[in-house]
Amino acid sequence: MPSVSSTLASAMTEAAGAVVEALGHLLPKSEYPENRLYEAMRYGTLNGGKRLRPFLVLCSSHIFGVADECALRTAAAIECVHCYSLIHDDLPAMDDSDLRRGNPTVHKAFDEATAVLAGDALLTIAFEILADPRTHEDPAVRCRLVSALAKASGVQGMVGGQMLDLIAESTELDIGAITRLQRMKTGDLIAVSTEAGAILGKASVQHASALRNYAHDLGLAFQIVDDLLDAEGTEAETGKPVGRDAEAGKATFVTILGIERARAQAKLLSEQAIKHLAVFDGRAGALEDVARFVVDRKS
Amino acid sequence: MPSVSSTLASAMTEAAGAVVEALGHLLPKSEYPENRLYEAMRYGTLNGGKRLRPFLVLCSSHIFGVADECALRTAAAIECVHCYSLIHDDLPAMDDSDLRRGNPTVHKAFDEATAVLAGDALLTIAFEILADPRTHEDPAVRCRLVSALAKASGVQGMVGGQMLDLIAESTELDIGAITRLQRMKTGDLIAVSTEAGAILGKASVQHASALRNYAHDLGLAFQIVDDLLDAEGTEAETGKPVGRDAEAGKATFVTILGIERARAQAKLLSEQAIKHLAVFDGRAGALEDVARFVVDRKS
Repeated sequence: MPSVSSTLASAMTEAAGAVVEALGHLLPKSEYPENRLYEAMRYGTLNGGKRLRPFLVLCSSHIFGVADECALRTAAAIECVHCYSLIHDDLPAMDDSDLRRGNPTVHKAFDEATAVLAGDALLTIAFEILADPRTHEDPAVRCRLVSALAKASGVQGMVGGQMLDLIAESTELDIGAITRLQRMKTGDLIAVSTEAGAILGKASVQHASALRNYAHDLGLAFQIVDDLLDAEGTEAETGKPVGRDAEAGKATFVTILGIERARAQAKLLSEQAIKHLAVFDGRAGALEDVARFVVDRKS
Repeated sequence: MPSVSSTLASAMTEAAGAVVEALGHLLPKSEYPENRLYEAMRYGTLNGGKRLRPFLVLCSSHIFGVADECALRTAAAIECVHCYSLIHDDLPAMDDSDLRRGNPTVHKAFDEATAVLAGDALLTIAFEILADPRTHEDPAVRCRLVSALAKASGVQGMVGGQMLDLIAESTELDIGAITRLQRMKTGDLIAVSTEAGAILGKASVQHASALRNYAHDLGLAFQIVDDLLDAEGTEAETGKPVGRDAEAGKATFVTILGIERARAQAKLLSEQAIKHLAVFDGRAGALEDVARFVVDRKS
């Protein structure tokens, strides 16, 4: 497995910068007393993170020649949903985490009520951004984005997966149930990020389906590596507490498959993801790099 | 002020039944373990409530001859947002309420994590419902609905108002600040419910603006009466704890205006709301009744 190419690293850094700039504009400061809420929204979105999902939006948009503003707004909207989910997942009633990306979590830096509201507001603004004509001139495209993001992040997707994750603490799950849980909890948002470019670019069914298959394998590989990092990583490397799955007695890909088989499985999925991109004749090089990066990452 | 007409009461009951049926279909049970989340979503939406917002959607849709299914789906979506906001507002970190509509709140009947997730999922599904072609054949209309609902319920609207409400516990607010707070916290969602019919029916600018002005006055009247009920009502009448504003030392319309002036102001706003409907030549009779009901209600 080659190390992450410096090309990809600099492309990701550049994309992250552009997305943070877009988020900064979309989440302005306010002169009113509720500015505290804007501050919490900005704190929960502008500070660090790999920005993997926005990068996937930008890469897939690039394949279909989507205008930068459209792609960036869509990327920012999906990142708002991702960040809201982190803020709510970190709450005392949920994972009760004090640390995120090496910084105090939103409910620690502000307070719990503000964290609940900041998450709610970020989820809401994501749909406002997508429904805005600046995101795409064709309202049918905007509706497809809203619909795809809502499905990926709601009860059939991310939130449902989070519910399953809570249930997993007290229930024995088999590999099928864990795969389904992770598909919902993280896979679906990764998938919609990858498909966003196809929606924005009105791609053919064949191209959209190639991206969907790529995203499916990528999402699963990503989650297996997340489990590996929780089992093997250090807090300094990952910027968040580690070893929590084992502590909670939670079944993960690693507890079921063991470290070696989990690592082999992630590698296999990454290679498989890359094969789905053959249909783009080399125009999806960045997505190939992402698939390699996802299994190589240390945080 | 006449008492609520029996015509309105039976129209509201009928509409509430239709909306609950629509919600029941939109929030199905699941055979998977995450059914707990669906149960919490159903519990938080299907049990009681006046269904004022859905009724406003149905009334305004009726003026413009909007098809029943379109109006009902939109009504259900807005009610999902209203119910999510109640679930999150009741959380221990927020208002810490044990009782809602005479029943245990969602975090009491389930648990806090499930309540957070049920709220998140209801907010998300609202946008999924609106973006679905079954809500309206024209994607431009669906985008307008998504956009209007997101603005009304996000940081510039309901969630921002909730943040202000929390700040109000420790800050002295004047009547202007309270009006702004209440416009955001409850007025904007009432306004979007009323405007929804105009959006679905592609109403003229004049008609849409009449509805907006009506909704503005109605929303304010509604909130003043809410404050009056908190100051004067009983838990048995309202189905929720009362006297909490005074307990929290929170400024409200009632603490600033006093009971008599607040009641007079609500009545004035209600009459003013009705005047905005003159442009509909009697086709908005139900909305006139609503304006009377809102100041007459006991819960």
